[in-house]
Amino acid sequence: MGTQKKVAIIGVGLLGGSLALALKKKNVTVVGWNHRVSSRKKAARLLKVEPTFEKAVQDADVVVLCSHSSTVLPFLLHLNHMLKPDTLILDVSSIKGKIVEIAEQIKGLENHFVPCHPMAGKEKSGADFADAGLYKERYIFITPLKKNPLALVQRAVKFWASLGAKPVLMDAKTHDKNVALTSHLPHLLASAFVQLYGNQEKRSKNIRMAVGSGFKDFTRIAGSNPSMWSDILEMNSKEVLAFLTAYRKQLAGLEKQLKRGHKSFWMKFFEKGRSLREKIQ
Amino acid sequence: MGTQKKVAIIGVGLLGGSLALALKKKNVTVVGWNHRVSSRKKAARLLKVEPTFEKAVQDADVVVLCSHSSTVLPFLLHLNHMLKPDTLILDVSSIKGKIVEIAEQIKGLENHFVPCHPMAGKEKSGADFADAGLYKERYIFITPLKKNPLALVQRAVKFWASLGAKPVLMDAKTHDKNVALTSHLPHLLASAFVQLYGNQEKRSKNIRMAVGSGFKDFTRIAGSNPSMWSDILEMNSKEVLAFLTAYRKQLAGLEKQLKRGHKSFWMKFFEKGRSLREKIQ
Repeated sequence: MGTQKKVAIIGVGLLGGSLALALKKKNVTVVGWNHRVSSRKKAARLLKVEPTFEKAVQDADVVVLCSHSSTVLPFLLHLNHMLKPDTLILDVSSIKGKIVEIAEQIKGLENHFVPCHPMAGKEKSGADFADAGLYKERYIFITPLKKNPLALVQRAVKFWASLGAKPVLMDAKTHDKNVALTSHLPHLLASAFVQLYGNQEKRSKNIRMAVGSGFKDFTRIAGSNPSMWSDILEMNSKEVLAFLTAYRKQLAGLEKQLKRGHKSFWMKFFEKGRSLREKIQ
Repeated sequence: MGTQKKVAIIGVGLLGGSLALALKKKNVTVVGWNHRVSSRKKAARLLKVEPTFEKAVQDADVVVLCSHSSTVLPFLLHLNHMLKPDTLILDVSSIKGKIVEIAEQIKGLENHFVPCHPMAGKEKSGADFADAGLYKERYIFITPLKKNPLALVQRAVKFWASLGAKPVLMDAKTHDKNVALTSHLPHLLASAFVQLYGNQEKRSKNIRMAVGSGFKDFTRIAGSNPSMWSDILEMNSKEVLAFLTAYRKQLAGLEKQLKRGHKSFWMKFFEKGRSLREKIQ
């Protein structure tokens, strides 16, 4: 961590809590704060929790915003008036475009804030599931503000690299498009699917016995935090919508194939799917 | 296994191979046979493999058809003329309706064949992944023929129960509808999704870095055996189609919500999904 002395983590949930554990292993001073009192109590099992936001970020060398996507901008506005000149601010939100767009309009913020998104997470949320190894070997997408000084971006890179993560620079638009397809759309699809299942279960209770490991894998992400995911869907709606429409049209084509009943089509279809999936380990 | 002395397994892949391992632990004589020479060689690592189908089923007390769904009926027709009077025939196909419908028209078969579907499997196929514990605690759906003698059905129930599985009687139509939603549709959706991803990857190579554990869980079943799944989709097309259409319409509704951008909608949507998913352990 070089000269970093104090790291403040705002929002000690799964990501914030895991970060706290990883930093403590490196003998960094870590303090945390959560908006809700109940969350502060849970967080206190992992790190020193300050009673107020102001106290937490006071004299911090690095502030990491680990709260939900919709809270990043309000926190940034608030922070902008209360920092040491060289405090680095990072976030971990899955959405970068809207955050970058507005952050670039806040004067002075470019000298503090470097937007980040770690590709780390679980379907379980909350500090109870914190894991010191969560960031190890994970990609961290860094989507700098236009006016970020290079040295500041380099500090962000070093911060994540020191935890064993793999920082990657990327523009925010490409980032948001990529995660819309790889992460946001699957969450929407899995949630919609379990709702279709839930409706059917009302009619046919014995269907529960037909739920196997494939169903469970396919729907695991439907168990994710609703408040976090509603933020994400709202903030990345345009990119998700484009892929959702493409997918829905693809399904309409498959309905036609099911009506025709050509087995050779399905053989090619599943072969294509398998060969693509096998490339992803 | 009571008085069963010899079990013949036709189609020694994941399900057949796992059955062989489980039966051998119970000191049952097990022989196997595969259509393809290469598969026979793999199978020979797990059990005694006979050079011909005829030799395998000769004098068998139980014949278990573990080959793909589309081969069950041809094997049944063939078997019907070469069995001891009390030979029990089982299958393990995911599709029951079409098999039951045709099997009921084959005179004499009702005294041998009890259709079964074990809710056991992995996304990996083949004898290499065989596992003696695969059937343990798993539901086995048994969808009898109308004219099956009760004693024969009871033998099927005992066969599976002796392996630690949980046999459940069900009518074939309900079975096919249930698995269309819990298993067949998710396989189709996962395969379609990785194909959407594959198209996008051609345009944007760096998207691969944005693939996380959620994506991997969601798409794991797209790695399943194409030949097995094209059989299933063809043989259960009507039931899958009904749910696919319902799902596609649900997605069209979600597109409208994304355009409107009401966060309260998404909060309720993901809460509903999570609460349903949390009921499934």
